[in-house]
Amino acid sequence: MIVAMLETAGEDQIQGVIDHLVKMGFEVHRSTGARQTVLGAVGRRIDFDIRDIEVLSGVQLVHRISSPYKLVGRSFRPEGTRVILPNGVEIGGKEIIVMAGPCSVESREQLFAAAEHVSKAGAKVLRGGAFKPRSSPYTFQGMGLDGLKLLREAGDRYGLMVISEVMEISQIELMLPYIDIFQIGARNMQNFNLLRELGKIRKPVLLKRGIAATIEEMLLSAEYIMSGGNYQVILCERGIRTFETYTRNTLDISAIPVVHKLSHLPMTSDPSHGTGIRDKVAPMACASIAAGADALLIEVHPNPDQALSDGAQSLYPEQFSELMGQLRMIAPAVGRTIG
Amino acid sequence: MIVAMLETAGEDQIQGVIDHLVKMGFEVHRSTGARQTVLGAVGRRIDFDIRDIEVLSGVQLVHRISSPYKLVGRSFRPEGTRVILPNGVEIGGKEIIVMAGPCSVESREQLFAAAEHVSKAGAKVLRGGAFKPRSSPYTFQGMGLDGLKLLREAGDRYGLMVISEVMEISQIELMLPYIDIFQIGARNMQNFNLLRELGKIRKPVLLKRGIAATIEEMLLSAEYIMSGGNYQVILCERGIRTFETYTRNTLDISAIPVVHKLSHLPMTSDPSHGTGIRDKVAPMACASIAAGADALLIEVHPNPDQALSDGAQSLYPEQFSELMGQLRMIAPAVGRTIG
Amino acid sequence: MIVAMLETAGEDQIQGVIDHLVKMGFEVHRSTGARQTVLGAVGRRIDFDIRDIEVLSGVQLVHRISSPYKLVGRSFRPEGTRVILPNGVEIGGKEIIVMAGPCSVESREQLFAAAEHVSKAGAKVLRGGAFKPRSSPYTFQGMGLDGLKLLREAGDRYGLMVISEVMEISQIELMLPYIDIFQIGARNMQNFNLLRELGKIRKPVLLKRGIAATIEEMLLSAEYIMSGGNYQVILCERGIRTFETYTRNTLDISAIPVVHKLSHLPMTSDPSHGTGIRDKVAPMACASIAAGADALLIEVHPNPDQALSDGAQSLYPEQFSELMGQLRMIAPAVGRTIG
Amino acid sequence: MIVAMLETAGEDQIQGVIDHLVKMGFEVHRSTGARQTVLGAVGRRIDFDIRDIEVLSGVQLVHRISSPYKLVGRSFRPEGTRVILPNGVEIGGKEIIVMAGPCSVESREQLFAAAEHVSKAGAKVLRGGAFKPRSSPYTFQGMGLDGLKLLREAGDRYGLMVISEVMEISQIELMLPYIDIFQIGARNMQNFNLLRELGKIRKPVLLKRGIAATIEEMLLSAEYIMSGGNYQVILCERGIRTFETYTRNTLDISAIPVVHKLSHLPMTSDPSHGTGIRDKVAPMACASIAAGADALLIEVHPNPDQALSDGAQSLYPEQFSELMGQLRMIAPAVGRTIG
Repeated sequence: MIVAMLETAGEDQIQGVIDHLVKMGFEVHRSTGARQTVLGAVGRRIDFDIRDIEVLSGVQLVHRISSPYKLVGRSFRPEGTRVILPNGVEIGGKEIIVMAGPCSVESREQLFAAAEHVSKAGAKVLRGGAFKPRSSPYTFQGMGLDGLKLLREAGDRYGLMVISEVMEISQIELMLPYIDIFQIGARNMQNFNLLRELGKIRKPVLLKRGIAATIEEMLLSAEYIMSGGNYQVILCERGIRTFETYTRNTLDISAIPVVHKLSHLPMTSDPSHGTGIRDKVAPMACASIAAGADALLIEVHPNPDQALSDGAQSLYPEQFSELMGQLRMIAPAVGRTIG
Repeated sequence: MIVAMLETAGEDQIQGVIDHLVKMGFEVHRSTGARQTVLGAVGRRIDFDIRDIEVLSGVQLVHRISSPYKLVGRSFRPEGTRVILPNGVEIGGKEIIVMAGPCSVESREQLFAAAEHVSKAGAKVLRGGAFKPRSSPYTFQGMGLDGLKLLREAGDRYGLMVISEVMEISQIELMLPYIDIFQIGARNMQNFNLLRELGKIRKPVLLKRGIAATIEEMLLSAEYIMSGGNYQVILCERGIRTFETYTRNTLDISAIPVVHKLSHLPMTSDPSHGTGIRDKVAPMACASIAAGADALLIEVHPNPDQALSDGAQSLYPEQFSELMGQLRMIAPAVGRTIG
Repeated sequence: MIVAMLETAGEDQIQGVIDHLVKMGFEVHRSTGARQTVLGAVGRRIDFDIRDIEVLSGVQLVHRISSPYKLVGRSFRPEGTRVILPNGVEIGGKEIIVMAGPCSVESREQLFAAAEHVSKAGAKVLRGGAFKPRSSPYTFQGMGLDGLKLLREAGDRYGLMVISEVMEISQIELMLPYIDIFQIGARNMQNFNLLRELGKIRKPVLLKRGIAATIEEMLLSAEYIMSGGNYQVILCERGIRTFETYTRNTLDISAIPVVHKLSHLPMTSDPSHGTGIRDKVAPMACASIAAGADALLIEVHPNPDQALSDGAQSLYPEQFSELMGQLRMIAPAVGRTIG
Repeated sequence: MIVAMLETAGEDQIQGVIDHLVKMGFEVHRSTGARQTVLGAVGRRIDFDIRDIEVLSGVQLVHRISSPYKLVGRSFRPEGTRVILPNGVEIGGKEIIVMAGPCSVESREQLFAAAEHVSKAGAKVLRGGAFKPRSSPYTFQGMGLDGLKLLREAGDRYGLMVISEVMEISQIELMLPYIDIFQIGARNMQNFNLLRELGKIRKPVLLKRGIAATIEEMLLSAEYIMSGGNYQVILCERGIRTFETYTRNTLDISAIPVVHKLSHLPMTSDPSHGTGIRDKVAPMACASIAAGADALLIEVHPNPDQALSDGAQSLYPEQFSELMGQLRMIAPAVGRTIG
């Protein structure tokens, strides 16, 4: 931490700040210039709020130097993390992994049709919601346990791993037998109790960026999970909220190379939620791969016009196949392959 | 819902959209102009996603007419809601209510000192966190049940009602005996399972606006609670995330008159979280009252420099007293009183 | 400037950065810690881009310490600036000044009716646009020179000073004989050529914050004007663009106390543009005064339903009178008076 | 325009709104439902402010149906616009065009070295600033006319067309003999006087999206130019301002497919300004092409560490060559070629 004192700060104020920093456990370096004094506070503590120093008397400004996270930082695992699924598929390796399927599990017919199609087209993981967080209390809320069972069955039948969203601590136990990856939705990115519980299990967790979360906040949320001992964390950009209203969210594709620089965790992209509009999904999926994404999450529905949720952003099966063809052409440009 | 068809839309496309709307349960009015056809869909359904119509063939654009909520709308209770606390204090009436206290309950000494001071200065409700949602896993996480007991004791001793944040369904039972108002934090505004459970109890709930939530989304979250039968909901502006970084958040004071127009629920303001900086709290508290807020939530700590959380935005006791004096001068300008 | 080197930075990299800083004219203090080296660069230069250091080899992060501005900083004139108008009215003194009038000058009848009313109600300055920046090329573009003449005439008749927006360098000469304050609109806040020219004149300039401008950027734009020798600068918050769409912009009232801390310049508020909705203007005007604004800009039209621009946000004359009454009640709470 | 009346609106209020719409020149269709009345206003007028209707008595809400622009709309030229440069190079055709060069023209040596390199690597247009809009009054402001002459000379020498930014009306005449494309910077996107003047010339104009401009506002600004008769307009995404601070701006890549749907004008991307960080430029350039961009603007400097402006976001020459190789691999995936 660096503390710049006001030009007008007196010796007692400077000493007061030094004392405060020492009490917090820092070693303090003092640099006295012609115009102002600057203090450097060095130490292993990362659990402080810089505003506590900012309000001390005589302080002009304060900046962190150390990251507020440690386990998720790139230097913790410079070679990068590969999350390995039960069937050997790796997220974070040379191969780009596509996870696809309907927004919600609606019926056996719907799910199996989707699973068969995406499997043939090259997807490796089946997505589908069993518990749905909906902003209106009057809309479809998901099939629950029955949906989980269908997901497992469809995954096993078509050789796909299974990912589904967990919304609440009580659902973890329920989901464990059926799914391969726990997904944390954007609205739960800072549900710290849930993160902590997921830190105790030993299955991969895909953490979506909140719509108003900075990249640093997403990394801090991942730190919650890792600090519990679960190191199989996958990050996901899914669109942030901006002033632009044409798209539902603004997919921040630059977050992909930024996360790759700051962290060792795999970084993925969800162009379906990121745009909210079917005909924008393919261009943004291509863009995500071109920017270096390790995996994609894509909504595909056998009959989007009849979907109970998010039909407007779900691809038709044939659109998904076509997109996979495009992605296969782009992957080599960034030194990757695709199944 | 209004559906404007493209100028190029053919009769079959128009008929296709009409059929779709009828199947959804709407009565459809067709208006054929020289250049384009416009369809008006009228009905009682509010649980639909307009994007499902937007993607139909031949559609140019779609707009909702009806609000997506009903119970929270102003027309449901044109005279406004007064939330009445056990001791008769009303939120939403002529009197402006001030809720004050420390960010976290840290100890009996700290809490009682704060409670005594804010009570004398005119606050009617004691605030204090027992469970703390912290963005870093390495910081103070609250006193839990012991904190709740202290809150109750301090409230009773100094004649104050008690408000505290609930973060999780499992905490509801635990908190019920000790608190008078459940607070839902900004990060849980769209934790729909939690909202639903709070709809089943019969104690007031103060719902904070999420940092990236529109006013309409806040109202929809309140609808979740009300649709469960709990009509004692209080709304709270606590700052939204914008590009400006000088303040921690941007307190959207205009949300106060906007909510008063759209809804019958009391609308309050939290200038402590809304700014994150101690010397900005008083001006923004004054501004909130001048804009018509029904109540304020203000962090006060007997010794902010030693606070375990959010010390930088907590007022010194004497600052709080001074602020109360200012608020008493402003209240009559908006036809209100203050205790 | 503070430069934190990476933990892995070698001596040659550290020396490289030091050499670069010295070449830029800084005096460098080196602080070598157990884990990393931190460099403090001190000097009088403020015209640098910290990203030039961020990209040097071995650098972890860089922070400015000095403000990027000097003349607008509070320390340049700790007692605060009072902008004095030709008739002795002061902006930035104890009295709060209200500037009111129609969005555009449309006709002699319209302008004189507005001027008479606002003058009687207590306004001290008449506002009105002669040149209108409109986002569509197909809408009313203002009366031009004739509008300026009417403004002067109406101001003189009703004892009001006159403010009007300048959009282009070529208009400065044209406007000089007619107006008392040049207004720079939000869209021109970073029109640096225009700012520079206004730095050469000796009339007050009211600079509006751009809809996506940080407070620091607004101060830097004011520095452009002051660096030309024109110290009579007034700042104005008029709403920023956020994700919320209910209001046209989000009036950032916290900018008022923030600017008062960072700068000596008077800080004002424009609740008409800041909300864009008539019935939100009065609450936000009251809130601005309660937060410490030195002046207000308010649109008033004798017949808003017939206005050629911005009728929807213009007050009816009687609403303006009523608002002035409220403001007079609030002013004493913040130690101010109102005429 | 669609006007939904309140359920409580009386016949006189409905009639009042109808009269108002008719006076504005609209034909009105009335649709009376069981609960509320909806009015459809149809006509050729596009120069109205819907807020003028919103504030009428009895109105619930109002929506536009027609776009506020006409010449820039896709339906005006369904086949798309190709902007043809003097040497026959087309922007908007099958070939993706790369425009590259330094941020500012600094010297003959610097510019010629850059031009030679980017030409060899496959760029078709040379970019370089002669007039620089800088947010601080104390930084390098550009070489002016001498810079323009050098640009022309370097372009001619290395077979490149020339693009440079125009900041002010008075510069248009000066620039005309030297440049092939006028660039309008993000800060001038709504400098309507400048747009109008550029509508009178007959050279291509590249219009950059403002950092807080919606896509619709960018299209409206293009309409200004086209309504003057200059149809050779190129649009450019260069990053919008969001809450994320790691990158300088958030490059909104989804704007590329959105503009292609709404408008016939070529849509390009500037990943240099869009990210502000050198090592993010290549991934975002690749992503832009994968999303369908017609051209790229990229800053390349022979010696970025010595650049007088924006060195931190300028590519080293060898990075640019490498990027061109990647782009050539991606182009076929979106049915394009690259020179």
